[in-house]
Amino acid sequence: MATLIKNGTLVTASDRFVADLRLEGGTIVELGSGLARPGDEVVDAKGKLVLPGAIDAHTHLDMPFMGTSSSDDFATGTIAALHGGTTTIIDFIVPTRGQSLPAALELWRAKAQGKAACDYGFHCCIVEMAEHTLEEMDALFRQGITSFKLFTAYPGVLMIDDGAIYRALRWAARRGALIQAHAENGPVITEVVAELVAARKLEPLYHGLSRPSQLEGEATARLCAIAEVAAAPLYIVHLTCSEALEAVRASRRRGARVFAETCPQYLYLSLEDLARPDFEGSKFVCSPPLRPKSHQEELWRGLRQGDLQTVATDHCPFNFKGQKELGRGDFRKIPNGLPAIETRVHLLHQGVVDGKLDLCRFVDAVSTAPAKLFGLYPRKGALVPGADADLVIWDPEKKVDLGVANLHMRCDYSLYEGRTVTGGPEKVFLGGKLVVDGGRFLGRAGEGRFLARSALAE
Amino acid sequence: MATLIKNGTLVTASDRFVADLRLEGGTIVELGSGLARPGDEVVDAKGKLVLPGAIDAHTHLDMPFMGTSSSDDFATGTIAALHGGTTTIIDFIVPTRGQSLPAALELWRAKAQGKAACDYGFHCCIVEMAEHTLEEMDALFRQGITSFKLFTAYPGVLMIDDGAIYRALRWAARRGALIQAHAENGPVITEVVAELVAARKLEPLYHGLSRPSQLEGEATARLCAIAEVAAAPLYIVHLTCSEALEAVRASRRRGARVFAETCPQYLYLSLEDLARPDFEGSKFVCSPPLRPKSHQEELWRGLRQGDLQTVATDHCPFNFKGQKELGRGDFRKIPNGLPAIETRVHLLHQGVVDGKLDLCRFVDAVSTAPAKLFGLYPRKGALVPGADADLVIWDPEKKVDLGVANLHMRCDYSLYEGRTVTGGPEKVFLGGKLVVDGGRFLGRAGEGRFLARSALAE
Amino acid sequence: MATLIKNGTLVTASDRFVADLRLEGGTIVELGSGLARPGDEVVDAKGKLVLPGAIDAHTHLDMPFMGTSSSDDFATGTIAALHGGTTTIIDFIVPTRGQSLPAALELWRAKAQGKAACDYGFHCCIVEMAEHTLEEMDALFRQGITSFKLFTAYPGVLMIDDGAIYRALRWAARRGALIQAHAENGPVITEVVAELVAARKLEPLYHGLSRPSQLEGEATARLCAIAEVAAAPLYIVHLTCSEALEAVRASRRRGARVFAETCPQYLYLSLEDLARPDFEGSKFVCSPPLRPKSHQEELWRGLRQGDLQTVATDHCPFNFKGQKELGRGDFRKIPNGLPAIETRVHLLHQGVVDGKLDLCRFVDAVSTAPAKLFGLYPRKGALVPGADADLVIWDPEKKVDLGVANLHMRCDYSLYEGRTVTGGPEKVFLGGKLVVDGGRFLGRAGEGRFLARSALAE
Amino acid sequence: MATLIKNGTLVTASDRFVADLRLEGGTIVELGSGLARPGDEVVDAKGKLVLPGAIDAHTHLDMPFMGTSSSDDFATGTIAALHGGTTTIIDFIVPTRGQSLPAALELWRAKAQGKAACDYGFHCCIVEMAEHTLEEMDALFRQGITSFKLFTAYPGVLMIDDGAIYRALRWAARRGALIQAHAENGPVITEVVAELVAARKLEPLYHGLSRPSQLEGEATARLCAIAEVAAAPLYIVHLTCSEALEAVRASRRRGARVFAETCPQYLYLSLEDLARPDFEGSKFVCSPPLRPKSHQEELWRGLRQGDLQTVATDHCPFNFKGQKELGRGDFRKIPNGLPAIETRVHLLHQGVVDGKLDLCRFVDAVSTAPAKLFGLYPRKGALVPGADADLVIWDPEKKVDLGVANLHMRCDYSLYEGRTVTGGPEKVFLGGKLVVDGGRFLGRAGEGRFLARSALAE
Repeated sequence: MATLIKNGTLVTASDRFVADLRLEGGTIVELGSGLARPGDEVVDAKGKLVLPGAIDAHTHLDMPFMGTSSSDDFATGTIAALHGGTTTIIDFIVPTRGQSLPAALELWRAKAQGKAACDYGFHCCIVEMAEHTLEEMDALFRQGITSFKLFTAYPGVLMIDDGAIYRALRWAARRGALIQAHAENGPVITEVVAELVAARKLEPLYHGLSRPSQLEGEATARLCAIAEVAAAPLYIVHLTCSEALEAVRASRRRGARVFAETCPQYLYLSLEDLARPDFEGSKFVCSPPLRPKSHQEELWRGLRQGDLQTVATDHCPFNFKGQKELGRGDFRKIPNGLPAIETRVHLLHQGVVDGKLDLCRFVDAVSTAPAKLFGLYPRKGALVPGADADLVIWDPEKKVDLGVANLHMRCDYSLYEGRTVTGGPEKVFLGGKLVVDGGRFLGRAGEGRFLARSALAE
Repeated sequence: MATLIKNGTLVTASDRFVADLRLEGGTIVELGSGLARPGDEVVDAKGKLVLPGAIDAHTHLDMPFMGTSSSDDFATGTIAALHGGTTTIIDFIVPTRGQSLPAALELWRAKAQGKAACDYGFHCCIVEMAEHTLEEMDALFRQGITSFKLFTAYPGVLMIDDGAIYRALRWAARRGALIQAHAENGPVITEVVAELVAARKLEPLYHGLSRPSQLEGEATARLCAIAEVAAAPLYIVHLTCSEALEAVRASRRRGARVFAETCPQYLYLSLEDLARPDFEGSKFVCSPPLRPKSHQEELWRGLRQGDLQTVATDHCPFNFKGQKELGRGDFRKIPNGLPAIETRVHLLHQGVVDGKLDLCRFVDAVSTAPAKLFGLYPRKGALVPGADADLVIWDPEKKVDLGVANLHMRCDYSLYEGRTVTGGPEKVFLGGKLVVDGGRFLGRAGEGRFLARSALAE
Repeated sequence: MATLIKNGTLVTASDRFVADLRLEGGTIVELGSGLARPGDEVVDAKGKLVLPGAIDAHTHLDMPFMGTSSSDDFATGTIAALHGGTTTIIDFIVPTRGQSLPAALELWRAKAQGKAACDYGFHCCIVEMAEHTLEEMDALFRQGITSFKLFTAYPGVLMIDDGAIYRALRWAARRGALIQAHAENGPVITEVVAELVAARKLEPLYHGLSRPSQLEGEATARLCAIAEVAAAPLYIVHLTCSEALEAVRASRRRGARVFAETCPQYLYLSLEDLARPDFEGSKFVCSPPLRPKSHQEELWRGLRQGDLQTVATDHCPFNFKGQKELGRGDFRKIPNGLPAIETRVHLLHQGVVDGKLDLCRFVDAVSTAPAKLFGLYPRKGALVPGADADLVIWDPEKKVDLGVANLHMRCDYSLYEGRTVTGGPEKVFLGGKLVVDGGRFLGRAGEGRFLARSALAE
Repeated sequence: MATLIKNGTLVTASDRFVADLRLEGGTIVELGSGLARPGDEVVDAKGKLVLPGAIDAHTHLDMPFMGTSSSDDFATGTIAALHGGTTTIIDFIVPTRGQSLPAALELWRAKAQGKAACDYGFHCCIVEMAEHTLEEMDALFRQGITSFKLFTAYPGVLMIDDGAIYRALRWAARRGALIQAHAENGPVITEVVAELVAARKLEPLYHGLSRPSQLEGEATARLCAIAEVAAAPLYIVHLTCSEALEAVRASRRRGARVFAETCPQYLYLSLEDLARPDFEGSKFVCSPPLRPKSHQEELWRGLRQGDLQTVATDHCPFNFKGQKELGRGDFRKIPNGLPAIETRVHLLHQGVVDGKLDLCRFVDAVSTAPAKLFGLYPRKGALVPGADADLVIWDPEKKVDLGVANLHMRCDYSLYEGRTVTGGPEKVFLGGKLVVDGGRFLGRAGEGRFLARSALAE
């Protein structure tokens, strides 16, 4: 049976037009006008936007970290994602040192299996470059894990050295894989942290001050330079500041294939939130940290002009009670991470309302660009015949309160308590099936499919 | 009767996918798979690209200039355009000082009427800011002439002063019109020309040397600054050099709505061509002039990264015999202008073949972006239901010799004699009608429609 | 008879050292230790700085402007200069259109003759490029007027067009003269002024808002580009803002011989002063106008790093009563100009106290650099044997109140009322003669000498 | 007994003037005109320049490296230095890991004791940050070793990590010490080397290609960022390329106290020299390596405009026979280093002759700036009463052949064989004593004095 979405305003990464859209057998089959046929289930989208399902290319569900685990698992997290208009996520496999990558992949597939309510793929973190690491990366690549994240931060735990980064980039360039990087200078941060601790500066704010933006700018510029020498593409995750944006821009100007992602929290929140009293600041602790407000406008501009390609969430929630609280009296012990998977599309659309992005760049940033960069296109990220029928019918005018009471993430607070945005999903389709309707969840944990992703197109 | 274009690879400014496309009543009505219906005229496009008809936003047909007239009129020029895959042009009305803008519009409409074989609109040049000029601009705006070109070059003839430019920009910002600008510092060029003439440096090469790129960079930066103060959008025509590109980039970085166009001649030809012996250099005389080769790579990069939005031609051909020859012995008398309307899409597609652009940016630069900037979107520039059925079925692999023998422009030479490119149009549809098929022209002079254009979208 | 200045700390543009200094016959004859000889007049400078007399390369004494005249003549102005440690000024000849330059020179020499209490030279403004202008510039050059100022502002009065600017630069490059420029886009300012007037925005603040910094940045970049094409050196007068500084920097990076001057008012005062109530803002009206505070730090940085070479005053005072008041109710009628000649060295030294400049750059900016750029070196601007014995014994620790009660300029207000700085002159020598001692003036109007200046050294 | 140098043209970092100069008791006592007194030894310097003795702030005499030792010891090296007009050197103590810094200092003092023919000081390399390292740095600081060099290159041997660099910078900022850095990304270079070796690319040219300039630019930018976070001054040694220069400039623009040195080899030689046939390229192997020629003009510009402050040599010679030859067939085994101590001043003066520097910047770069940065000023680097009478009487017109036959360094080749420069020392004074006269050495190994240096002035 087919579904006909009538009269909606379809928005893609480049186009905006009124048309009907027919879904059948899980895919989009037709765009046109007056497509109605007998037996079609008809959805009237007049006055609404019809968007390709959004893709969140940076999530951490059910992830052990800092002695606890992120509070959303693949069921709660993906259901929240769907409520927010996100129909595909790409989560990070995080192996421990010594663990083989295929073993880690198994572990992560097991976490998702039977739980994920939306489609999902995996990136894999590379936390050491041991003898067989490149071979194992190749094995994962063949299973559709085609992007790998490296760290210049967290020395002794996740960081690998610049030589290892170069080796990974060279392999990726040959293989068509994409190297992602968390760009902060970890060893210097360790020293700044020690100075702050010695000075008894232990409140959440000092988490932010211990990781100055210059050190993100530095690491970003470094990674770009290494990628240029390696003649390899590079993707910077969660870029937060003007220094790093400038490094990406300069590298792109020199002709490099460097891409970057930012997150809604860096567009809307700031160091001032880390300074909230009564340990409330801990709710905003993530890494890289929130920055002084002046960076926000720069990031919006980077998004608008395409120097930043994508917006993901780095969703990694911890409850205030029992988790964030572990760091009372010592910011080093506050679990780093934020609840974000559900509110991303709302917040980016608010940028359209505020005149900071146009509708097409909005769709590109939250859906099409991640699909293309991560080997999911045109199955995902596009309103074209043959694509998966992952769709959002978006009401551009409804008011949505982003307080915790209205959210579905398994987290006891919202970053945006008291904030109302304009625009939100009315219906969400996953593979042609209506899974969210007017705020009601109609899907099912476990029906999300694993996505084997392709290489980066040239 | 409907036409069904089957199995083609549709390419838009953001998407690339295999689908059928149905045309009916002059517009696109459906995209999908397996759309064939009884009675459809079926065109098999398997292995071919299906592109929105290209738009050339900068032409000078039948234009009086330097004591002669450009050699293509609206019939020959638009037929050549169609042969090259361009289905819409926007030509420039060039009033003389003292002439009212509505009178000039009448003149230009008369030139096109009964002649144009493709659709067309007009920009209008503003060569003085007299008492009623803004009122007359308003009158034209109401008739769908929504963009106006100013000059910082050609003092005494076309140039208006910076104060007048500011007034025009302020009016445009209020009205939703777009100001275009030819950016070179005319008064300084006049001095450099005089020095060269005094030194008896009169060959075609000195045309190029008399207009150094710094003076284009300067004027571009100046126009950007004035547009920023005026809070108005601005469109730089025929940008040729890294200095000007850098000025545009810097202005965009500061948040300005500045756009720019380049032309194929600046991407492929250089000052060396102006130095060709036996007065052959005269064939390459245009303004701004061809630049040293090092600028080409910068322009490609600007296009790829979106700092340059569009590629137009500045088509303004003069025959070598009888026209270019007027300047033998004195470069000042060589008519400025080049034959370009027919080869633009070929040359840009060659950039895709050479890895300098991706297919989507190619389509954007030659079709979608000009449609959006000049108030034709989504009627033009898009493969969406409801759009005009202006289409090109493009063979991405055929070899095309760009020598004069294969071209249809009314000009006795080709800029690209001896050069072969990969890719060219197989069939061209205008309003659903097949007008070029395998190199045969099936259309008719006079069937092109005048396009009243809209304001610049915000 | 010789004077021996003992034990002072001599400061030059590069060195700082304790030594004795002997003056004889109007010049410095010896530096060394233990130089005392019988008969020497001995001045103990222990703990004090000994500086070369400061040079103010931008003054307007006795200048007719906007229907009135600057309130200081060559007597009162130069006496005030000496009180402030300035022993040489370079004033601007301002011909009217139609007046020959030699005639204007005569007029200015007559203004100075018998009045100037310190040494002086002249620059000449070029307010039109008529048939004989270059010849007349040559005539002045031979009389030691080796620098000429052009305007991109004040259309219809002082502005000349870019072609004329190019001609002047080319002549200067051949002749060894230095072209100075007032860089603001006059024609656009005229339009902005008209808009403000139409909106009844007539208070002094709108003087500032009518001349936005982008228009100074634009004109500065334009002049740099023209100078680069002309292969000529260029000196930007009274640079006020980061946009213009960036233009100068970029041009210097490209290898151009571009120099720039700022003034103390741009380092210490801001747009906020123009907004003072009760028409007090009028006291701060000058052109280019005071800028938002954020520009100040940039200018200090430019000075520190040598992208700005000199600090002059643009001294052009008008009394509040009877002069500034002419513009009550209409900022266009407020005479543009400030009292500044006496307080420049104090204010720059305060920059040393505040850690913004080192002592050597301070001396360079107020004395050595202008001497070199304007053909006075090493007669002026240096503490070397053979140099004119123009010296300041500077107490780096005394507190000086810059209120009008303590100043000697013929102006009824101070820009710095209520502000105290650290450091001031204790004794000032002109040609070996003590002319200011502990605040008492011991010199004589008329004893200042005219300085025929040399060409710009290569 | 006093020496009177008559009629010379004295040149300082800011001034140029004709004067007599009297030396007595090892110091400069007087500058003036007509200073001759009975009994003075008179040297006529008419038509000659009189310069402060040059300072080479980067030498490696008698240094064990790569299994051999630099071929000049403190006797031969300093005698060669004097022949070239250099009267002070600062050599690097290079401790081995595990060795205490005071022990290393003792070793280096012993190398110099009784051998050095010119004055000398020491910097100390920091090759590990062990428990007592900061205390030992403090101990050296108290003995006048006030600058310390760190490495981001040579992992496993000299490199320390970014955290250790930050600690050193923080200590230096508190103490008034200056951290120097060798800026190349060692770990990535190791990988590139391995790739080249695997591809059997083993000739000297590949030494250069294994260390691309981007990796120097990267490390320079990184060090600047860390210094900014540490609020510490920083001095980049042997800067070779535009990428690194741009990093230094950008940091200085942000207000950082970052300084940089280049070397004559980077101003005159290039990658092409590394490609010389018959293993001749090995004579040009040093690290960072010689760069493509396009970098040279950028470096001259950086020097001229003061973004590069100093020129030193990194003198570390190895004979071709027996030393460079160790690397035949494997560039990794070619000892890295060049003979340079004798020709530095000649080569920089040639820059003056070629119009790339003015005389004052020349003196500043080779003498005054290093004196100021390394705590020797005004004892060294200045022509002022009280300074050490280290002087060079420089003939600006004599032709000097820089072939090995005319040089005094203990090295069997010259980098500049066949090259003639204009200008060279006629007489060299050290502490008032004539030590080189017309090419004859009149000094004595061992009479050079150890210089305990001061902290960096603020």
